[in-house]
Amino acid sequence: MSQTKILPAAKNAHQYPLLIKQLLLSGPRFSPDQEIVYANRSKYTYKDLVERINRLANALTEAGVKPGDTVAVMDWDTPRYLECFFAIPMMGAVLHTINVRLSPEQIVYTMNHAEDDVVLVHDDFLPILEGVRDDIKTVKTYIQLSDEDTAQETELETAGEYEALLANAASEFDFPDFDENSVATTFYTTGTTGNPKGVFFSHRQLVLHTLTMTGSLAASDEMPLLRSSSVYMPITPMFHVHAWGVPYAATLMGIKQVYPGRYEPELLVDLLKEHDVTFSHCVPTIMQMMLATDSIKTADLSNWHVLIGGSALPKGLCDAGAQLGIRMYTGYGMSETCPLLSATHLTPEDLELPLEQQTAKRVKTGIAMPMVELEIVDPSGNPVPHDGEAKGEIVARAPWLTQNHIKEPAKGEELWEGGWLHTGDVASMEPDNTLTIKDRIKDVIKTGGEWLSSLDLESLISQHPSVASAAVVGIPDEKWGERPYALVTLNAGEQATAEDIQQHLMQYVEKGEINKWAIPSQIDFAEDIPKTSVGKINKKLIRDQLT
Amino acid sequence: MSQTKILPAAKNAHQYPLLIKQLLLSGPRFSPDQEIVYANRSKYTYKDLVERINRLANALTEAGVKPGDTVAVMDWDTPRYLECFFAIPMMGAVLHTINVRLSPEQIVYTMNHAEDDVVLVHDDFLPILEGVRDDIKTVKTYIQLSDEDTAQETELETAGEYEALLANAASEFDFPDFDENSVATTFYTTGTTGNPKGVFFSHRQLVLHTLTMTGSLAASDEMPLLRSSSVYMPITPMFHVHAWGVPYAATLMGIKQVYPGRYEPELLVDLLKEHDVTFSHCVPTIMQMMLATDSIKTADLSNWHVLIGGSALPKGLCDAGAQLGIRMYTGYGMSETCPLLSATHLTPEDLELPLEQQTAKRVKTGIAMPMVELEIVDPSGNPVPHDGEAKGEIVARAPWLTQNHIKEPAKGEELWEGGWLHTGDVASMEPDNTLTIKDRIKDVIKTGGEWLSSLDLESLISQHPSVASAAVVGIPDEKWGERPYALVTLNAGEQATAEDIQQHLMQYVEKGEINKWAIPSQIDFAEDIPKTSVGKINKKLIRDQLT
Repeated sequence: MSQTKILPAAKNAHQYPLLIKQLLLSGPRFSPDQEIVYANRSKYTYKDLVERINRLANALTEAGVKPGDTVAVMDWDTPRYLECFFAIPMMGAVLHTINVRLSPEQIVYTMNHAEDDVVLVHDDFLPILEGVRDDIKTVKTYIQLSDEDTAQETELETAGEYEALLANAASEFDFPDFDENSVATTFYTTGTTGNPKGVFFSHRQLVLHTLTMTGSLAASDEMPLLRSSSVYMPITPMFHVHAWGVPYAATLMGIKQVYPGRYEPELLVDLLKEHDVTFSHCVPTIMQMMLATDSIKTADLSNWHVLIGGSALPKGLCDAGAQLGIRMYTGYGMSETCPLLSATHLTPEDLELPLEQQTAKRVKTGIAMPMVELEIVDPSGNPVPHDGEAKGEIVARAPWLTQNHIKEPAKGEELWEGGWLHTGDVASMEPDNTLTIKDRIKDVIKTGGEWLSSLDLESLISQHPSVASAAVVGIPDEKWGERPYALVTLNAGEQATAEDIQQHLMQYVEKGEINKWAIPSQIDFAEDIPKTSVGKINKKLIRDQLT
Repeated sequence: MSQTKILPAAKNAHQYPLLIKQLLLSGPRFSPDQEIVYANRSKYTYKDLVERINRLANALTEAGVKPGDTVAVMDWDTPRYLECFFAIPMMGAVLHTINVRLSPEQIVYTMNHAEDDVVLVHDDFLPILEGVRDDIKTVKTYIQLSDEDTAQETELETAGEYEALLANAASEFDFPDFDENSVATTFYTTGTTGNPKGVFFSHRQLVLHTLTMTGSLAASDEMPLLRSSSVYMPITPMFHVHAWGVPYAATLMGIKQVYPGRYEPELLVDLLKEHDVTFSHCVPTIMQMMLATDSIKTADLSNWHVLIGGSALPKGLCDAGAQLGIRMYTGYGMSETCPLLSATHLTPEDLELPLEQQTAKRVKTGIAMPMVELEIVDPSGNPVPHDGEAKGEIVARAPWLTQNHIKEPAKGEELWEGGWLHTGDVASMEPDNTLTIKDRIKDVIKTGGEWLSSLDLESLISQHPSVASAAVVGIPDEKWGERPYALVTLNAGEQATAEDIQQHLMQYVEKGEINKWAIPSQIDFAEDIPKTSVGKINKKLIRDQLT
């Protein structure tokens, strides 16, 4: 094609690379005295936040940190972590948010792989690092993070405790300009196999994610999550995709932020009440734990909006929340996508229904965010129809998707096959662009040219009165490609045969809900279904045991 | 400094240049059936908008438009113009929004200077172009824009009428990716002297302005301008800085838009009522005209929010609006700045006051938007104190400032002196970062090392009971640099001498509001004060006549 027109800039014009330091301009200007709270421990203002970020940058410089270095953090969800979100990338260094839930072996793997230079570590996690100390290859110094008056004794060589270092550091720091494509953050995702994979995000990507998120979470009157009078408390770990990037957006707008530290359900509910929290985000499990507390029953939660992600929002959970007045929405994304790709989209008409009747809409994967292109494609990469039925893998383009897997170019190219980021999630899309996730692509059963959702089949089998739970996987089949296989556990004292289950599934064939070839020809019964360490069905193990 | 870390992207990763086409992704997805209204003439949906943009791109291609070409528009404020805001830059061409209020000679100057290839022109403006036809150098073809069933006869060579061309064009267009620094739009600003100067904005700049504006105009509960249930009607011309860029933000969020066509005050008020408009922006003059209509007295305007810009929001106008329940805010920016730099910032406490008592805050220039750095500097470029008193020129950095004046590198370098964009506006800044504009820098009087605001002095002189109006300019003075000079008109039948005026000003010296050297030593009286074509005091002429 012909060339577009590019005109020269004046010699002295400022080019304005997109840098995280710019996200810190407006919040303190809008509301310098707004509070940032650390659980029931302490609080300070946005004015203090700016000064502490400056002090941290000086303390890290003193500890030897230079642009291009990697500084890792192992902390609970604290205002300290928020300070690291800003100060470390603003210096031109890379923030490595260590997943403290990994095994010590995996943690040390990620530290070596990311080539961490300095590590900020909370007292609670010192034993982990002390235990793998000899395997840590690149770290030159540690900084202790302590919630007590006296930091814990440690065998590690430390530059000191965080608060003491900040107190002794100068309160001004001149954060430099640099290439907006510089890496700002990195962290590792875990699959069911192999080593954790590193993803990374640039300053440009985080600025664009933040600006788009701010508009999206503010502008919808049906999902008014992030507004100047909001009170924000994250309940997804800050090590995991920057707590979904929301702390950056909250800081941009200068809204009140409450950091809970550890996730103790009673404490979380207390903080909700004390600070009249209006916006949180979490995975379903945490919400379940909070709903199970006694204290939540006496809380007025009619102004609490919660974005649920990480896994699908179960209907039952959304209903249980609705009974307490909690407004839940689905957010969709993954570590590779910074993360937000889509969210629940409600209309004014939806909101006219009683909250309990809005569940069907709230549990859908929703509509893509501004600036995001989402498509569902077949294995050849061709779009499948947006008819609410046809299933395809979700692929994405957006200004904030990880551009590669660190030091794993082959994995990076697989991720970006065909120039679209492959999410590994299988979904249908309705004519109005609403997505509903059906399965992980590795769990979907490819049979007779169709994709069967293993989750759908598990749900149908579970509706047999004798069945306690079911796991469905695809097993190779010469004629069909794959055929579904089911592993079933029965309720105590109940009995059923494979034929009973097949007979049960026939009713859904007759209703047109599934095709006949969706009925597993092989069904086994077991005492337990194998689970992974985080409680998900271990489908890989089930498949391995079959072949 | 050391290098930051930049990691390689996967070979096939999509890089996602920031392009205007991405601003069109979400609105039609969120609300495909939402309306876009053309005054009392017609309306269509967001679904239609997308199709019409595709058709327009095909029609323009048919008319010979290629990437890099310049396509100019002379139209009233219409959905057609909105279509041009998208289709023309999305093709990789440059949209030139012609200022139809310029003289025909200035219009043809800008057309030749911008090297327009194709011009879309409304019937009403045909006579202008026909009159300067022989001076137009680069235009190859015209497209007529008509609001009637039959387009007007014209001597110009046209490719046809807009609606007919769209009807005959294909409904799909594959908009390409290209460099995000490609010029998307251009238009010309007029000074009091010399030819109009061209500014230009890239795709990247308009995307960043739009994303930041969306968050800023949505997130504030004290200034809730742009939300999903808003109804938006622009009342600043679309040729002028893209109607302040708000149509892009409104389209991004899929909100209802009402385009008024011509600015007839009665029609504007009718549209406000008919569509329950919640958000507009305009210059004070238009608001004055609307407030002077009879029909506004019967309108419920308690949900109408108006951003006032172009010149300062007068207290009296803000008060008059408040009496009708209208919420006015100040927005600040200029052609060179895309335009938004700052806006009124209200706190929840401000809103607790009756609307009439909020005026003092609403008329201030406000606090800088997110992503914007604003400073006030002395003539050497050094920041002056933020004490609400000291005056300095406002200089800016932001991701969306014009990078140059087209084909005028010397002017571009002057604009960007010291790596900051110089606005030419003089302001004070309060400790809380609130700006208040005091004067244009060319009108400020530099005397004895201090800056005197000519506007402040005019206001004080006008408070003398015999004075009808006053103009103050600086005249060269060997000892002081400059000294203030005042030209005064008196009320009919009144008399006053220069000494009377000086005596009147002494009271402000005694109160400490001004210094003694602020009192003009020379004061003349006249029947009229010279005005420019747009009704502003012609200070250049006054100065010229003095020297």
